[in-house]
Amino acid sequence: MCRDAGGIMAQSSAGGEAAASAEETLRRSLEHYVQAWNEPDDDARRQHLAAAWTENATYTDPSADVRGREALVRHIAGFLADPELQGFSIVRVTDVDVHHRSFRFGWEMQGPDGQTVTPGIDYGEFNDEGMITKIVGFFGPMAALP
Amino acid sequence: MCRDAGGIMAQSSAGGEAAASAEETLRRSLEHYVQAWNEPDDDARRQHLAAAWTENATYTDPSADVRGREALVRHIAGFLADPELQGFSIVRVTDVDVHHRSFRFGWEMQGPDGQTVTPGIDYGEFNDEGMITKIVGFFGPMAALP
Repeated sequence: MCRDAGGIMAQSSAGGEAAASAEETLRRSLEHYVQAWNEPDDDARRQHLAAAWTENATYTDPSADVRGREALVRHIAGFLADPELQGFSIVRVTDVDVHHRSFRFGWEMQGPDGQTVTPGIDYGEFNDEGMITKIVGFFGPMAALP
Repeated sequence: MCRDAGGIMAQSSAGGEAAASAEETLRRSLEHYVQAWNEPDDDARRQHLAAAWTENATYTDPSADVRGREALVRHIAGFLADPELQGFSIVRVTDVDVHHRSFRFGWEMQGPDGQTVTPGIDYGEFNDEGMITKIVGFFGPMAALP
């Protein structure tokens, strides 16, 4: 899975400048994305997602399947309004690992005391403008073999 | 990221039987997929991928971007022919974590003595028949925050 039979590296290199720029913008998009999960004000959250999330991007996790920016604005509102989760926050806990137009990063849902309640990873995709087009989240550590 | 504002669980439940069947088939597809990475015979590897990989599925990792089943048959041939990797194997080391039509699992590239050379995770997607339509691989552990 490590080596390339040839040609791909040259291709990546040819698009290197655009790739670097899209990746830089992606990193800013991710900051806005994580801030959106912690922003109780609808308008402020919408602004974070406007800087991060394409209009038709999809968010999926084990309990959600949400298409579109405005739908995610509302989905996060429901998460933040959950009476059992008051004082909780979503914190990114790893660097972002990027190749081609895909990425992964680790996050934690932390309780009011900062303890980790749920760890998770997000897989995502982004476009040439560095805007997120898809995130698929997974909860918990990787499961052991049965 | 944990709660759903409503409706999604009912939707999942309505498609429960088909979902279970596709997920069962996906697990068999993944066995064939991992076997393909360890199969030096072109025809046998092609048969494993015929049972796992749609004709136009995509495989991407930090050094590869391969579209189509036959292209993956050839890409793996290049990997297996690498003189520096003789005696190496790809081993799945976690259970498969599935939701909606997405999954993740952990794997290792192991040297001839069984020691881990490279750990990694694969993110993937599958169709209603349980066939893989996309895998995006990431190498190494999650990167620490800068």
